[in-house]
Amino acid sequence: MARIVMKFGGTSVADLDRIQSVARRVAYQVLAGHEVAVVVSAMAGVTNQLVGYCQKLSPLHDAREYDAVVATGEQVTSGLLAIALQELGVEARSWQGWQIPLRTDGAHGKARIEAIDGEELIRRMRIGQVPVLAGFQGIGPDHRLTTLGRGGSDTSAVALAAALAADRCDIYTDVDGVYTTDPRIVPKARKLAKISYEEMLELASVGAKVLQTRSVELAMKQRVRVQVLSSFAEPTDDAIQGTLVVDEDEIVEKEIVSGIAYSRDEAKITVRRVPDRPGIAAAVFGPLSAANVNVDMIVQNVSADGTTDMTFTIGRADLARTQAILKAAHAEIGYADLLTDPDVAKISVVGVGMRSHAGVANTMFRTLAEKGINIQVITSSEIKVSVLVGAEYTELAVRALHTAYGLDAA
Amino acid sequence: MARIVMKFGGTSVADLDRIQSVARRVAYQVLAGHEVAVVVSAMAGVTNQLVGYCQKLSPLHDAREYDAVVATGEQVTSGLLAIALQELGVEARSWQGWQIPLRTDGAHGKARIEAIDGEELIRRMRIGQVPVLAGFQGIGPDHRLTTLGRGGSDTSAVALAAALAADRCDIYTDVDGVYTTDPRIVPKARKLAKISYEEMLELASVGAKVLQTRSVELAMKQRVRVQVLSSFAEPTDDAIQGTLVVDEDEIVEKEIVSGIAYSRDEAKITVRRVPDRPGIAAAVFGPLSAANVNVDMIVQNVSADGTTDMTFTIGRADLARTQAILKAAHAEIGYADLLTDPDVAKISVVGVGMRSHAGVANTMFRTLAEKGINIQVITSSEIKVSVLVGAEYTELAVRALHTAYGLDAA
Repeated sequence: MARIVMKFGGTSVADLDRIQSVARRVAYQVLAGHEVAVVVSAMAGVTNQLVGYCQKLSPLHDAREYDAVVATGEQVTSGLLAIALQELGVEARSWQGWQIPLRTDGAHGKARIEAIDGEELIRRMRIGQVPVLAGFQGIGPDHRLTTLGRGGSDTSAVALAAALAADRCDIYTDVDGVYTTDPRIVPKARKLAKISYEEMLELASVGAKVLQTRSVELAMKQRVRVQVLSSFAEPTDDAIQGTLVVDEDEIVEKEIVSGIAYSRDEAKITVRRVPDRPGIAAAVFGPLSAANVNVDMIVQNVSADGTTDMTFTIGRADLARTQAILKAAHAEIGYADLLTDPDVAKISVVGVGMRSHAGVANTMFRTLAEKGINIQVITSSEIKVSVLVGAEYTELAVRALHTAYGLDAA
Repeated sequence: MARIVMKFGGTSVADLDRIQSVARRVAYQVLAGHEVAVVVSAMAGVTNQLVGYCQKLSPLHDAREYDAVVATGEQVTSGLLAIALQELGVEARSWQGWQIPLRTDGAHGKARIEAIDGEELIRRMRIGQVPVLAGFQGIGPDHRLTTLGRGGSDTSAVALAAALAADRCDIYTDVDGVYTTDPRIVPKARKLAKISYEEMLELASVGAKVLQTRSVELAMKQRVRVQVLSSFAEPTDDAIQGTLVVDEDEIVEKEIVSGIAYSRDEAKITVRRVPDRPGIAAAVFGPLSAANVNVDMIVQNVSADGTTDMTFTIGRADLARTQAILKAAHAEIGYADLLTDPDVAKISVVGVGMRSHAGVANTMFRTLAEKGINIQVITSSEIKVSVLVGAEYTELAVRALHTAYGLDAA
């Protein structure tokens, strides 16, 4: 018997049929003897509609009122799922963030969870009642509704699992787990049985959007075991079918490389021949940071004549804005030329095994060279090596690397 | 300068354009120097959709979950209106029932308001902030959301006006006031400038559905001056344009008859030759009451041979059920025959002036006789005389009486 938090996203509760299907899935776990709490998102499309209302009435609307409006989506689903569960003979009740209470800070629209009082919920779970929590929201210090930002229900679920000391937090999504890479590019991609928090974070931040980054960070910090599962499969037994996101220590046979991630939403900028003097990086990146432009890979080579070239990547959507900012700062920075390239892709090799295995990066470079793919920029962290290549090489690079690291399914 | 509660129903906040129009109307009152609080319903159609969800998932759904689901409709409108007001430069914030708090009893789905703490709202209104209350809901003794039953936002508004000691509660609807009768039947019907609570109650209960009956009862009890206004007219000045529902004492020139009401949703039942003995009424009406059938007009004539005929009216929708119940109780009651007639209409003459004027009923009987309309049943109260006639005479009877009591507009 385990204590489980089950979380269902918007597509999993898109209509009444899907809500009834979720109820059966929850009922199955209850009948198997588990203590279950559920976290739900708004029905697919509802949040977008409510956000649209607020934006149309006022582009710069009061975030506190936005929260009061948008939080209703999850409230509806929580009540409906409780009704559907009761109809199956499962004792259930809905809980709003303010009822538990689930306390957040006062950053309306993007609040952070501060505390969840899990005692009453645990007491009820022990006597067989299923709490159905409206995800994505809580109550702020001003006694008003707060929301956690888009995708915040994942974070609600992980935080609730921590507060309930749950054995596992099952996140039901429209994929059935975390794969070694995108199966649309590599049909031989394998579903991972387990992956570490660190690897999941690296995969999430390079575009494998299975879980919200914040929820993984929270799971890592609170040591919550998270499972990613498909909400479209039949509810069968308790055998783990998805991917478990756990502490590195729980993974006995560590793969050297767990996955290949890619992102095509990048653009490359090179600032040519800037003076090689202290403070020059701050002069380049200060104005971008002030304008909330997120800079990713940064490379700087020192050259002999007292100037240097700086290359970095940004989100492609920010390209025009970034160009304008750097042109405005031309006199201050003093560069010779500004080159931009929107046709780039970032390919990343991720794996905790890299820590103890040399040659991982070299395998990457050699594999890409063999395919005639030119590497424009290289960066690396403890468990990741990323390269920037021409966008047209994305699929070729991902497939070649997937094979080179022995990730192809038999 | 006055303190006003303004209430807007579902058609008045049906879409974003209408919500902006409501915001302008509220802003006008604020700019005129008044202290204003607003009560809103759900956007037209939303409540029906949410109720439909609950019913489809479970015909006998948990009323507490129903409340959690359905209460979101008003919550959305309150947040959106606050945003629209802020966009006009009016300081505003939304309030949910649980935030004020607006306390109700625990009768989920049809709760009654027990207490509203108005202090904080008054403090904020004094410094120019407009509280926008989500109508139709409160918080129960179980710390869960409750709703007041359909149309409950009128009651929310009147209760709030009482708690705030407001000078007036303005109810904006899709009609511009209370008329002497239905203008669709009598084009010369006049809008009443003032009407007493008692008359309003009689008119409401006989089918002039401008205000929810419960809200009028509450207004009478708490002495809240209610004004019925159209939300479709332009917001102009503070001159009273609708109909004021007030204490009888406020109406200086009392009309003998204020209005003619009618209801076509009636059915007549006659139980023939029941034994004329003590307890016979209980034998007839006990089973109906137990089955929640609402009995309206009741007439019993004593006859000589130890039996009597009992005639009464019920809602037409309850006719088949009522017949079945009475047939099942045939042995116990011991009647000779059961006659039913669904083709009847109730016509009522209402006016506080009847208290001091004789001959009102007689004018009614004479007028109907002149038109050749047969009266089937008569009942009367202190300020009302009602008759049951054949349904096909409805318009004729209403028009003739409207003229006979001098109600036609010049």
